[in-house]
Amino acid sequence: MFGVTILGNNSAIPSNDRHPTSQVVTIDEQLLLLDCGEGTQMQFNRYKVKRSKITYIFISHLHGDHYFGLIGLITSMGLLNRLDDLHIYGPADLKNIINIQLDAAGIVLPFKLFIHALGETTIIVDEKKFTVSCFPADHRIECWGFVIREKKNPRKINIDVIAQSEIPKSYYDELKKGCDYITKDGRTILNEEVTIANSPAKSYAFCADTRYDERIIEYIKNVTMLYHETTYLKDQLERAHERYHSTTEQAATMALKAGAGTLIIGHFSSKYDNITSFLNEAKVIFPNTMLAHEGATFKL
Amino acid sequence: MFGVTILGNNSAIPSNDRHPTSQVVTIDEQLLLLDCGEGTQMQFNRYKVKRSKITYIFISHLHGDHYFGLIGLITSMGLLNRLDDLHIYGPADLKNIINIQLDAAGIVLPFKLFIHALGETTIIVDEKKFTVSCFPADHRIECWGFVIREKKNPRKINIDVIAQSEIPKSYYDELKKGCDYITKDGRTILNEEVTIANSPAKSYAFCADTRYDERIIEYIKNVTMLYHETTYLKDQLERAHERYHSTTEQAATMALKAGAGTLIIGHFSSKYDNITSFLNEAKVIFPNTMLAHEGATFKL
Repeated sequence: MFGVTILGNNSAIPSNDRHPTSQVVTIDEQLLLLDCGEGTQMQFNRYKVKRSKITYIFISHLHGDHYFGLIGLITSMGLLNRLDDLHIYGPADLKNIINIQLDAAGIVLPFKLFIHALGETTIIVDEKKFTVSCFPADHRIECWGFVIREKKNPRKINIDVIAQSEIPKSYYDELKKGCDYITKDGRTILNEEVTIANSPAKSYAFCADTRYDERIIEYIKNVTMLYHETTYLKDQLERAHERYHSTTEQAATMALKAGAGTLIIGHFSSKYDNITSFLNEAKVIFPNTMLAHEGATFKL
Repeated sequence: MFGVTILGNNSAIPSNDRHPTSQVVTIDEQLLLLDCGEGTQMQFNRYKVKRSKITYIFISHLHGDHYFGLIGLITSMGLLNRLDDLHIYGPADLKNIINIQLDAAGIVLPFKLFIHALGETTIIVDEKKFTVSCFPADHRIECWGFVIREKKNPRKINIDVIAQSEIPKSYYDELKKGCDYITKDGRTILNEEVTIANSPAKSYAFCADTRYDERIIEYIKNVTMLYHETTYLKDQLERAHERYHSTTEQAATMALKAGAGTLIIGHFSSKYDNITSFLNEAKVIFPNTMLAHEGATFKL
């Protein structure tokens, strides 16, 4: 499963029963957390997210609605005797902020905590079945977006057919890459005879707080699913710009220009009690848009 | 009204739909916050607490379940354009922890924030109608309890009677203290003729995380209402001691020996789903015990 579950979709101040930003991505039996606003660990309880399965946490920026829940999550992991390493990526100041709070409480964590400072646009995680890269967003303070991409071989083994061949299992990885096989007696078994085309690798891009910025397009081009913030409705274009945020029309335009498959919108301003208009406005420009409802899981 | 509303009653890890410690005391039209665990500002929304009316915040110690919600509350107050001063009292490290997070977010608050370091057992707030004092608790790290005491004159004006006397209003404050009045022609009007006895001044003591410690008694002697932590049931005496916490029996014994009017118990360990046994056990020793149910308001 490659999917994303929304734990919070509100901006700035928690209100209207909406929580600050946090999303959990499931990929290759790992959980990746994107931002961690206050109360995220309580949202884990509510939506049955297994905190022990979180291996990576990515913090877009150091406005509180995107990370004030992180220290509580880390200390709870410690109290629950987590032993696995935990890797966190965020702006450079994050490490000090976390460490002085652990020190003040006299906490020695039972697991290794690595807090990595983001600094350049690059691949920051390179796992067997996926990568995570970061790119700069245009916000009032240093802010990063993230792209999670599946790694997939172009071909997969045709199990029904290959059993009747003499190809050893040790060669299967080569087959998945598209290679032919030469038998001991010099005969060529064409790749297409024993493999079938794999489904294309999918990708999820997370554009946290940002102004509309076309420089972002190159980093998120053709992603399967794009999350883009929409703090305001389209009539608040000026306010959005002043406050380094985006409108519905801007998020939808970004999805359109980037060639995204699906658009998820969230980070709604507390001033909106009802969020239906966000969907209506975005769909005019990008029909395949969905609201980041809390608790919703979107499969890629 | 002098009362306390429970916003959170769980220890350490939020669970069983219980939140970490926070209580709000209403006195003299002000709100005083005692501890501020993660999610406290969301609890404000749920229980209709007006954050703008909070004038003082007291943080017992720097374990996260007692203060991780503070930075979110402060920044939300800023976003809501609070202008009134805010005074926070807690261990010395708190100031740095708050300030580096405000700095990282580039926040300049629109109100004056004073973060005072606790250091000695003394009166820390001296308002017209109440005082707040602090005392040391016995916990793994530096930890403070707090006592809020009404200020009350011993007598109050008997409105029906005094109208017929010649005593000027400027002398009423002296009457409330118990003084007699000498008329212009030298006649004495006895205090008892124009005043009646006031109700006694009430007091609320907050014993956050602590081992059973009889040295605390002198600070909380004869309080109207005592909150004392009960992380464990009585069969966990050893564990309570090891972890610097108290059992039901210990909290009830403290209420008894201190001569408290009422006992409120909370800070229940996450291992207890049902908390009924806490009440039953404490009542054996101190019958006037109540559970710190979230959302409950206890009037003094």
